[in-house]
Amino acid sequence: MNTYNTDDIASLDKRYRTNFVNSLTGFKSVALIGSKNAEGIENLAIFSQIFHVGANPPLIGILFRPHTVSRHTLENILADKQFTVNHIKQDFLMEAHHTSARWEGSEFKACGLHTEYSKVIRAPYVQEASVQIGCSFVEKQTIHANNTELVVAQIIEVRIKENITGNDGFIDLEKAGTITCSGLDSYHSTQKLARYTYAKPDKLPEEI
Amino acid sequence: MNTYNTDDIASLDKRYRTNFVNSLTGFKSVALIGSKNAEGIENLAIFSQIFHVGANPPLIGILFRPHTVSRHTLENILADKQFTVNHIKQDFLMEAHHTSARWEGSEFKACGLHTEYSKVIRAPYVQEASVQIGCSFVEKQTIHANNTELVVAQIIEVRIKENITGNDGFIDLEKAGTITCSGLDSYHSTQKLARYTYAKPDKLPEEI
Repeated sequence: MNTYNTDDIASLDKRYRTNFVNSLTGFKSVALIGSKNAEGIENLAIFSQIFHVGANPPLIGILFRPHTVSRHTLENILADKQFTVNHIKQDFLMEAHHTSARWEGSEFKACGLHTEYSKVIRAPYVQEASVQIGCSFVEKQTIHANNTELVVAQIIEVRIKENITGNDGFIDLEKAGTITCSGLDSYHSTQKLARYTYAKPDKLPEEI
Repeated sequence: MNTYNTDDIASLDKRYRTNFVNSLTGFKSVALIGSKNAEGIENLAIFSQIFHVGANPPLIGILFRPHTVSRHTLENILADKQFTVNHIKQDFLMEAHHTSARWEGSEFKACGLHTEYSKVIRAPYVQEASVQIGCSFVEKQTIHANNTELVVAQIIEVRIKENITGNDGFIDLEKAGTITCSGLDSYHSTQKLARYTYAKPDKLPEEI
């Protein structure tokens, strides 16, 4: 095993450390967040820091780093209180990655992606996405250790491609074409290994 | 597209909604958290709510649901201030899932996994894991919307299998055998699609 302690990590070259530490937490969700500013300009940005917070009420969390390109998205969410989360497919992966550049106007047209609107949410969905989630701002907290901002939002609309949700509510993300990411810039498709039954001490888990 | 609004989601059967909403945020990291209580009993629990918070200082976050089996882990972290995060490989996936049962004593022996100790961290590592991360508690915040607890911790040790970290610090999680998960109980291996260059407005992203 290669071993790194606190001093070893602190003395790494900045770019090396960023890649290294961003890889350590394993595979991450990656999605496009759609929002709109007060002038009506549509914004789209790729995020890998979106996670489940609760099922009832349905809540998600997003981490926003201080001083990054993602600040437009955070400003729009805090002002408009609404945004969308759109899963990314291999078909438009390069376009999705391109949204992270410092664009002047809307990333939709600039990157070759299309808006889609519902009656529930003011913010734009990504037409190309098989899973589209409409969210309403609930609360924001600051992580004191590094001033990262945590936004918690309620899911108020879900639009999802037909025939990918099972009888038990489980969404087959592979059928949806949803990809995952690792580190800062690496994207991956997945292959199902197993679903297991609810674990109990007196027997081994079985495949569902 | 199938569409669900707030009322539709609220009226879903509880188990259905739990599977459904847990699937919505896409693929997640999944890892085993090792900890130790005041009596020295080693604890091991599977978590899918671990995420990157910052690279310098190196910080991770973990969400703990209120009133779940994971409370042992949270109690140990708050008391001992240290814990480990261990990536999961297909080789010991069933054993890793089995840690989520309500065991009386240590999950290591009960589930057929082995402890490993370093000089830096009091909490046990999982010997079988290719990526082992030692963490020190930094802060805890409560998400008001549903009383979920967010723990932020600093990475104070990394132990990682040789020949999987690139010259730029990127860790090849596929070489490490690290898996991902979706929903509550589905596990997946990955296949790399692409790494892309830092995005700029004046040119298309290129594969690294």
